[in-house]
Amino acid sequence: MTSTTYTSRVFPLETMEVPGGTETILRGGRHLFPLLPRAFAGVRRIGVIGWGPQGRAQALNLRDSLAGSGIRVTVGLRPGSASAADARAHGFTEEDGTLGDWLAVAADSDLLILLIADAALAAHHQEIFAALQPGAVIGLSHGFLLGHLRETGGEFPAGHGVIAVCPKGMGDSVRRLYQQGEEINGAGINSSYAVHADPDGRATDLALGWSVALGSPYTFRTTLDSEYLSDIVGERAILLGAVHGIVESLHTRFRLAGDDEITAYERSCENITGPIARTISHAGLRAVREGLDTAGRDVFDRAYTATYGPARELVAEIYDEVADGTELRSVILAERRLGSRPMSEIGGSPMWSVSDRAHARRAEQALPVEPFTAGVFLATMTAQIDEFAERGHPWSEIVNESVIEAVDSLLPYMHARNVAHMVDNCSRTARLGARRWGPRFQAAYEQIAYPAAERPADEALLAAFDGHPVHEALAAAAKLRPSVDISVA
Amino acid sequence: MTSTTYTSRVFPLETMEVPGGTETILRGGRHLFPLLPRAFAGVRRIGVIGWGPQGRAQALNLRDSLAGSGIRVTVGLRPGSASAADARAHGFTEEDGTLGDWLAVAADSDLLILLIADAALAAHHQEIFAALQPGAVIGLSHGFLLGHLRETGGEFPAGHGVIAVCPKGMGDSVRRLYQQGEEINGAGINSSYAVHADPDGRATDLALGWSVALGSPYTFRTTLDSEYLSDIVGERAILLGAVHGIVESLHTRFRLAGDDEITAYERSCENITGPIARTISHAGLRAVREGLDTAGRDVFDRAYTATYGPARELVAEIYDEVADGTELRSVILAERRLGSRPMSEIGGSPMWSVSDRAHARRAEQALPVEPFTAGVFLATMTAQIDEFAERGHPWSEIVNESVIEAVDSLLPYMHARNVAHMVDNCSRTARLGARRWGPRFQAAYEQIAYPAAERPADEALLAAFDGHPVHEALAAAAKLRPSVDISVA
Repeated sequence: MTSTTYTSRVFPLETMEVPGGTETILRGGRHLFPLLPRAFAGVRRIGVIGWGPQGRAQALNLRDSLAGSGIRVTVGLRPGSASAADARAHGFTEEDGTLGDWLAVAADSDLLILLIADAALAAHHQEIFAALQPGAVIGLSHGFLLGHLRETGGEFPAGHGVIAVCPKGMGDSVRRLYQQGEEINGAGINSSYAVHADPDGRATDLALGWSVALGSPYTFRTTLDSEYLSDIVGERAILLGAVHGIVESLHTRFRLAGDDEITAYERSCENITGPIARTISHAGLRAVREGLDTAGRDVFDRAYTATYGPARELVAEIYDEVADGTELRSVILAERRLGSRPMSEIGGSPMWSVSDRAHARRAEQALPVEPFTAGVFLATMTAQIDEFAERGHPWSEIVNESVIEAVDSLLPYMHARNVAHMVDNCSRTARLGARRWGPRFQAAYEQIAYPAAERPADEALLAAFDGHPVHEALAAAAKLRPSVDISVA
Repeated sequence: MTSTTYTSRVFPLETMEVPGGTETILRGGRHLFPLLPRAFAGVRRIGVIGWGPQGRAQALNLRDSLAGSGIRVTVGLRPGSASAADARAHGFTEEDGTLGDWLAVAADSDLLILLIADAALAAHHQEIFAALQPGAVIGLSHGFLLGHLRETGGEFPAGHGVIAVCPKGMGDSVRRLYQQGEEINGAGINSSYAVHADPDGRATDLALGWSVALGSPYTFRTTLDSEYLSDIVGERAILLGAVHGIVESLHTRFRLAGDDEITAYERSCENITGPIARTISHAGLRAVREGLDTAGRDVFDRAYTATYGPARELVAEIYDEVADGTELRSVILAERRLGSRPMSEIGGSPMWSVSDRAHARRAEQALPVEPFTAGVFLATMTAQIDEFAERGHPWSEIVNESVIEAVDSLLPYMHARNVAHMVDNCSRTARLGARRWGPRFQAAYEQIAYPAAERPADEALLAAFDGHPVHEALAAAAKLRPSVDISVA
C-alpha cells in the first residue's frame, strides 16, 4: 500500500477521509499562486520538453500561473519538430528564448519536465539526462519512463531530484478547465504527485507547486510505480478502451433488437456520455441505479452482474501485462511499425456516422438512463475499481483513474464529437492501448456477458456494489470538486 | 532464409518445386514403416510426456506404427494427472510399463518427446532435462521451449540431440487422419521437422522416422525458430483467431443487413467451413474467385482489397509480438491467472446457437460461395502468406501454416460443430492466442475494412493476388496430398 501522508513547508494541507483511513491532500486554487515562488525556490527556468496535448497544456498553464514571478517557462523541441509552428503561435519563440532545441533547453533548466511521447522518451532519455546541469530536477507526468528503465536495466541519473505531477485527464482538458477556472476559482483537473528521488529535500514542494500551477483542484500523493500502473491500465480499461468496446457492442445489440441507427446511438454512446456520466459526476455511482424504476432496475441488475465477471478478468489481464512490462514492449513495437505510416483510424464504424444526427436531437428530449447500458458501464467501472483496490492503490488514485477522469475529463470529448475525439486527444501510448484492448471488451461482452444477462441477477454482486467503499471515497472527492463542468466546444 | 535441403541415410527423398527454387521433401506412407527400425537406430524406448491432444495422438500413432519393431512407446504424466485414466483406457498402463511418472519415464527413454502444455514446459523443463540419461534425444513438436529459453537466458542441455517434428494440424486430426489412412495409404497431417542439436549425426533420420510414424503425407525441413514463429503467429491469425473474428463480424453484418440468423450463419461461418474451404482444398485459392459470376467478383474484389490492409497490419503486429517474446510472456501470465479457474468460454455468442439448425439444412441445398465472405477470408489468408514470405519462411511452411492446416485440418472441426470444437481442441497456447487476437480482427474488420468495401476495388492488390507465387507453391503441395478428406464425427 502506497503511503498517502505528506507535509509541506509552503502549502496548507488537508485530510480527506477514505475507506480504512485518511489521505493528505492539497486543495488547489488561484489564491495559492502567490505561494508558487516559495514552492519553486531555486528554480528560475522551467523547461517543458514536447508539445503534444500534455506539453502544450502544461507549458501554457505554467506560464500563465507563474506570470510576474520571474520564473521563465521554455519549450524544448527536437530538431525539425512539426510542432514548432504551433508553439510559436502560442507565444513561445526563439527570439525571447522560450523556444529552443530540446537538448539546449535541457541544459538550461532547473526543472525539466519531460512530456514527449513515450517511445521518444524511451529512445532519447539518455541524451537528455546527459545534458542536465547539476542539481536540475527531472519532472514527469506519468511513470512510463520508470517502467522502461526497469525493463532495460537503466536508472535515473544520480544526484537529480525526480518528481512527477500527473493530471488525471487529457492534456486538452488540463488547459480547457484551467481557462474556465479563471472565472471559477479551482476549476481544473485533479493530479497525483510522486517523489521518486529527493537529494536536497525540495521535491515535495516543487511537485505541489507544479500541480497548483497547473490548476489541480486537489493533489494527492502516490508513487511513480502506482501511478504508472493505474494510468496505463485505466486508459486501456474504463477510461478509453473498455468504453469504446462497450458502445460498439451495445450499438450493435440495440440495432439487432430493431432500433434504428440513431435510437441505438442514443441508447448506447449518447446514454453513457450524457445522462450516465452526468449522474455519476454530480451524484455518484449508486444514483444511476436508484434513478431507475423497478423494471429498469431488473434490467440494470442483470446487465451489471453478467458484465462484472468478464470485465474483471480483462482488467486483471491488462494489469498483469502492464505490471510485467509486456504492454510497454508492445507499445515500443507498435511505434516502430508506425514509424512510416499513420496509426489506424478509430471511429470509422457505422455507428459514428450518425453522431451528428443524434446530437441534433439533444434539444428535443431529455434522454433517460438506459438501464442495460448503465449496468454494463457501471460493472466495468466497478471491476476496475476492485482490481485497483485489491492491488493496493490509494483511494484518491482509484476514484480519479476510474471515475472522475472518465466522467469529468474524457467522456465529455466523446459527447462533443465521437470516440476519436476522445481517444486521439490522449497520449500515443493511450491511443495504442485503446486500439489494443477495446476489441477485447467488445467481444467478451457480445459473446459472454450479454448472453448471460438473460439469466437472473447475482444478488451477492449487487450487494457488494450497494455497500461498496468506493461510494465513500467518491463522496469525499466530490467535496473538492469545483462547481464547473468542462465545456468542450 | 531457412535452408530446406537435406539428405537421409534411410528414406528416399524428393524435390519439390517452389517459387524461387526447390525444397527437399520426404513423401510419407505406410510402405515406409519397415524402414522405421533403421531410422530409430539406437532408440529402444520412446517416452511421450503429456496426454493432451498432441500427446495422445502421437503416442497412439507411434505405438501403432512401431508395433512389432521392439521399440516401446511409454507415456509419462505428472503425479496425480487427471489424464491417467484416459491413457489407461487407450492401453498405456503401469502394469506393462507403458505408463509412468514423467520424470521416471524421462530417465528411461532414448527419445523423449515433450508434449505437455507450454506453461508446464516453462515451469518444469529443468527437472526433466536433469532426469535424462546420457545421449537421450529431446523431441519437441513446436518451438515454444526455444523461445522460452531465449527469454529466460536458459539453454538446452549439452550433449543431447534436440529435434522437432511439428504436425501442421491439431492433435485430434493427427490421430483421426492416421486411422483413416489405414485404408488410404498416406492420409495424415503434413509435418515440418527441425534439427536443433545433433551431437552424433542421428538427428535427421530420427526426426524423419518420427514423422513417418505419425503418418505425415510429406515432411519438410525448417528450423525451431521458423517453426515457432509461423506456428504461434498462424494460430493467432488465419488458423484460429482471425477466422473467429471474421465469422463473428460477418454474421453481425449479414444480420444487420436483414438476414435471419440461420441465413446469416450460412453466409458467414458455414460458407467458409463449407464451399470456400472445400474449393481451396481441392482447387486452390484462385478457384474461389474464378467460380463467381461478374457481380460476385465485384463484391469479392471490394471485400478483398478493403480487408487486405487491416489484415496485414494485424498479422505484422502479431508477428512482432511473437518474435519479441511478449506474446509468450502473455501466455505465461494468463496461465498463472487461470491456475484456479477455467478458461473463458469461446463460442457463446448468439450466432453459435443456430449452428445445429444451419447444419440441418445442409442436405437441402448446395451452398454457393458468398463473395463478400470469400473476399474477406482470402484477403486475410493472403496477408498472412505475404507476411510469412517477407520474413523468409520456407514455402512449405507458409502454405501448410496458412492454407493446408486451415482447410484440411482445422476448419472441418468448426464445420462439424462450432468454433469451440475447433479452437479448444488445440493447445492451450493456441486457445489463449485465439481469444486474445480474434477480437482484434473482428473490430478492425467491422470498423475499418467493411466500411472501406463500399469503395471500388484496388486493382493493384487484385493483380498481386492473381499473380501470387503462392498458387505455384500450393499446387506443388497439392500433388502430395492424399485423396482422402478428413471426416470429423
